[in-house]
Amino acid sequence: MTQHRNKRNTQVTVVGLGLMGRALAGAFVRGGLDVTVWNRTASRADDLVAGGARRAGSVREAVEAAGPDGLVVVCLTDYDAVREVLDPLGGLLDGRVLVNLTSGTSTVARETAARVAEAGGVCLDGAVMATPDGIGTADATVLLSGDFGAWTRHEKTLRLLGGRTDHIGDDHGLAALYEMGVLGLMWGILNGFLHGAALLGAAGVRAEAFAPVAKQGVATVAGWLDDYARRADAGDHGSPEATVETHLATMNHLVHESEALGVDTELPRLVRELAERAVAAGHGGDEYSVMIDVFRKRVGTPS
Amino acid sequence: MTQHRNKRNTQVTVVGLGLMGRALAGAFVRGGLDVTVWNRTASRADDLVAGGARRAGSVREAVEAAGPDGLVVVCLTDYDAVREVLDPLGGLLDGRVLVNLTSGTSTVARETAARVAEAGGVCLDGAVMATPDGIGTADATVLLSGDFGAWTRHEKTLRLLGGRTDHIGDDHGLAALYEMGVLGLMWGILNGFLHGAALLGAAGVRAEAFAPVAKQGVATVAGWLDDYARRADAGDHGSPEATVETHLATMNHLVHESEALGVDTELPRLVRELAERAVAAGHGGDEYSVMIDVFRKRVGTPS
Repeated sequence: MTQHRNKRNTQVTVVGLGLMGRALAGAFVRGGLDVTVWNRTASRADDLVAGGARRAGSVREAVEAAGPDGLVVVCLTDYDAVREVLDPLGGLLDGRVLVNLTSGTSTVARETAARVAEAGGVCLDGAVMATPDGIGTADATVLLSGDFGAWTRHEKTLRLLGGRTDHIGDDHGLAALYEMGVLGLMWGILNGFLHGAALLGAAGVRAEAFAPVAKQGVATVAGWLDDYARRADAGDHGSPEATVETHLATMNHLVHESEALGVDTELPRLVRELAERAVAAGHGGDEYSVMIDVFRKRVGTPS
Repeated sequence: MTQHRNKRNTQVTVVGLGLMGRALAGAFVRGGLDVTVWNRTASRADDLVAGGARRAGSVREAVEAAGPDGLVVVCLTDYDAVREVLDPLGGLLDGRVLVNLTSGTSTVARETAARVAEAGGVCLDGAVMATPDGIGTADATVLLSGDFGAWTRHEKTLRLLGGRTDHIGDDHGLAALYEMGVLGLMWGILNGFLHGAALLGAAGVRAEAFAPVAKQGVATVAGWLDDYARRADAGDHGSPEATVETHLATMNHLVHESEALGVDTELPRLVRELAERAVAAGHGGDEYSVMIDVFRKRVGTPS
């Protein structure tokens, strides 16, 4: 390590070594950087240390190790844990860039950025759109928002985390918002798949037989999202390919099928109820993309 | 047309000319078959007739036009409409293969198959997994279930509807069940995307900026479905990549974010409630795939 330091490699500190934190630190180590790690339970660092990382004895020591040009990456359970780590630092950040990859809401992300600024640092807030074992691969996406100068300074280093790492805007809350959007989609897919697998399973079909059909269906529907986005931005839900009413008819089938097979009906019932709200507000003949106005509570809010 | 008939082309009849029925008939016409069409509102056939299809004056005439070796494809609004069309036919089907592409539950699909058998016909029940303008393309999927002999006899003709057209089993209810599963996934994706777009829109981000990130997220999550399927079939939700508890923490963020931005909270609340049910039943440390048991009502059914 001493030898590395003499070469003045980029110095990165990773605070928080859960599954994701270890994956992040591992990607930096593989990238040949000088990596210092800290975790409350110190043993979590063992494998990383064996691979060439340095274990700091305290958060303060870890942050100092990054040096004034270095990067401090924080990935903890929640923002309360981030606050606990940041508050005792005082002005120690001293111009350092802190990249916060802890999940939370946009509001808390902005509060954290303000706290980092108070501690003398510059903040990027980020959302990791990958599983730990995807970190460092070409497909892994890490979205960062906040100070643009900090991004350009550390872009090369941060790209070690994934081929699709990018800066999406100056508002520190943006990464969290994108993450929320993608997480909602994720649960939509996972719950949709598992609910469907439960239905098919009740008829003796294995989930492994459903999976290829499900994946094909997912790919087809993903192909509609650009048109949905255009419609949502333009507020134009006319000339429909499939109206809310058409969807509603098959939503009824899903509720009845679930009932008949003893499978959960709560999820399909809510999906149907939301669509019924659009129909009741006069949008039954519109493209299903009009449902964004139900989610925006612009139409059909229950009294 | 007379000339075509003299060449003894495959004869196909399409009953029901909604958006989808017209697309199906169009694919058969483009495939060079002898196509006869019928619709209650006869003018719906105008474009098809201009393209070379023959308009029948009644369902009976349409079915007869298919000839004993032909195919009768039915695509109507619902199964009540199918019954109205089938009941007066008596034994007229006379060995003909009827392919029912009307959407409905597996129960009604099986009942319809029995009714077709009573009318002297052989039934395939099918689910079209494509939008009308996707019909006839390499990616369009039409799943068929029921009589295997009927499938092998008409496989080539039915493949004109889409490159991924396939027979998935002898049980007439299977196609409907697969369709229900894929539809549930579809609403999961569409609602997830629109809900996310509503969140981002509240922060001034256009849906068109969210779409590429959303699509990348969808592709990532689709990559997990094979493992989820394997886990579901094996009942093995151990060695988790992401536990139900981890998901639950971020579900809370989505509820709070939605609340803060004035966006619908019903959908994220239900998603959270279902996960809480798994946690309450002791599955918090399992992979999220364990949620299939919540949908199967094997764990955590509310009292």
